[in-house]
Amino acid sequence: MINTKIIKGNFGALFAQLPYITLKTAVIITDEYVYALHQQKFEGIITIVIKAGEQHKQQATINDIVQQLITLEVDRNYFIIGVGGGVVTDIAGYIASVYMRGLQFGFVPTTILAMVDAAIGGKNGIDIGQYKNLVGTIKQPNFLLYDYSFLQTLPQAEWINGFAEIIKHACIKDEALFDWLSHQSLDFFQKNTAALATLIDQNIAIKSTIVIQDEFEKGDRKLLNFGHTLGHAIENVYQLPHGHAISIGMVMACTISEEINNFSSAEKEKVIALLQKYYLPTTFNFDKDAIWHLLKMDKKRNSQSINFILLNTIGQAIIKPISLIQLQDLIQQNL
Amino acid sequence: MINTKIIKGNFGALFAQLPYITLKTAVIITDEYVYALHQQKFEGIITIVIKAGEQHKQQATINDIVQQLITLEVDRNYFIIGVGGGVVTDIAGYIASVYMRGLQFGFVPTTILAMVDAAIGGKNGIDIGQYKNLVGTIKQPNFLLYDYSFLQTLPQAEWINGFAEIIKHACIKDEALFDWLSHQSLDFFQKNTAALATLIDQNIAIKSTIVIQDEFEKGDRKLLNFGHTLGHAIENVYQLPHGHAISIGMVMACTISEEINNFSSAEKEKVIALLQKYYLPTTFNFDKDAIWHLLKMDKKRNSQSINFILLNTIGQAIIKPISLIQLQDLIQQNL
Repeated sequence: MINTKIIKGNFGALFAQLPYITLKTAVIITDEYVYALHQQKFEGIITIVIKAGEQHKQQATINDIVQQLITLEVDRNYFIIGVGGGVVTDIAGYIASVYMRGLQFGFVPTTILAMVDAAIGGKNGIDIGQYKNLVGTIKQPNFLLYDYSFLQTLPQAEWINGFAEIIKHACIKDEALFDWLSHQSLDFFQKNTAALATLIDQNIAIKSTIVIQDEFEKGDRKLLNFGHTLGHAIENVYQLPHGHAISIGMVMACTISEEINNFSSAEKEKVIALLQKYYLPTTFNFDKDAIWHLLKMDKKRNSQSINFILLNTIGQAIIKPISLIQLQDLIQQNL
Repeated sequence: MINTKIIKGNFGALFAQLPYITLKTAVIITDEYVYALHQQKFEGIITIVIKAGEQHKQQATINDIVQQLITLEVDRNYFIIGVGGGVVTDIAGYIASVYMRGLQFGFVPTTILAMVDAAIGGKNGIDIGQYKNLVGTIKQPNFLLYDYSFLQTLPQAEWINGFAEIIKHACIKDEALFDWLSHQSLDFFQKNTAALATLIDQNIAIKSTIVIQDEFEKGDRKLLNFGHTLGHAIENVYQLPHGHAISIGMVMACTISEEINNFSSAEKEKVIALLQKYYLPTTFNFDKDAIWHLLKMDKKRNSQSINFILLNTIGQAIIKPISLIQLQDLIQQNL
């Protein structure tokens, strides 16, 4: 955000028109799935194809891309374009932040999750072993290009993943959006492109408004971590899809909100019902000690407490520091 | 620079007084040489000791430090302090830029070169194989702490290295400084701490004035690359000390200045004489093809040309794009 241009339309045509890009000095980074499904879109542009999946969001992939950029003699005049889901945009943004101390870059998010969340806001990075996004930077892309034709090949599981973040946005910031989602269904949004476009626009607006106000996550941007503190820990230990993990994490955060923040149990049931309506899991049996061990290293930790995101009501979230001792207790007793 | 505080005085006392640092949440990064020579200064502070030397300014060292930070449970409240020469400050600054997407950091430069150059200006990073500083960021330290007691253990070769950058500053920006250096000697500055402190202050001022005006090297900051374009290439191929390499690079830049920028041969001889007075080499037999291959990947390359720094006169440098073809020719014919 800050200076990110948001551009909507058809990939091929628009891409060639991006004013600051000549195809000679653009390098696309994409993954093997996107490349195989949309090969014709990459014709004539230098393209680095990486392996798909969070398990490759590691330093080894960065090393490999850096070597390819050297071989291609890519210099500071090149533009990096990440075309893919959140793993690709995280990697492309990180490469563009550190290669030659920074190149210009933009994203073409190809999944719902990347369109409404991962590609927006400038956070990039890689995992270090089990620790998600432990290394990275915050740097805003020059543009975000939305081309809904990529969604035609998006697997059902990825649609579901994306809706977890949409429901998160509704829970923390937008009760009307929550109600709209409750009255519709995944099937509806998949068949009505106009409604889907409106939904995506609303979610871009929610996330980018927060990021513009608090780029470096000193305050309100923390609210976007709703469901992510426990969600990330579970995701890493059990290799769940991100949407599943944060769905479970959101339910847990609702439980903690009920326990220590007067969040009503009726509203908690509404959140659970909405997640289930969009095919997201809401319970999970996990090893409390393993999760606890990871939590202690969470980036959101503030020495002896963790900044936890809780709900007051649906549509209104708050940041609450919870001491490590109290949190350990809540996990043992209530989750 | 920007918001960097410059603090001068005795390490032990001042360090404990730095207002934003409690010893519990500070992590020092230093190298084995500095640690062995000044062990008592690190007592009571978590210290990560890395291997000394440019050959360790590589991703493997970064990976190793990240693992140590995880083990130490270092979070965003920690302060990273690089204590050492340019390799240490480059690595510490880079780690602090990417670990958890950025921690606060400061430097205690322990060499002349780091005091007058490397620690100032926020450039950090690592080498990728032979390519110097190919990966990194630009991020300003919160403080620079000058403690001249470290210079008591500085080897003579490192004094000479540092004076290469001092002479560079004089050549590009300060004829009076050039004259002062010409009338004094290395021995004089080593024996007169007041004169040395004045000299270091003047050099901090030259570099930081340039950096404040042009943090991201769109213009004047490029002048600081005087002697570095060819110097870095020679340094990498032949593993020369940095000061030796840029001394040779400065003489070459003088020759090119004479060839295509009307720099007088009398002034070129003055530059050579000053470098020799401070024990720096001014000629070197090198493999022109090997150097050329590396130059093509130089970060200062701008597609088909390289922004080269030339002298008009002693104390006044300019940026001149030289086409790759002309440069190849100049190297073959004149160097």
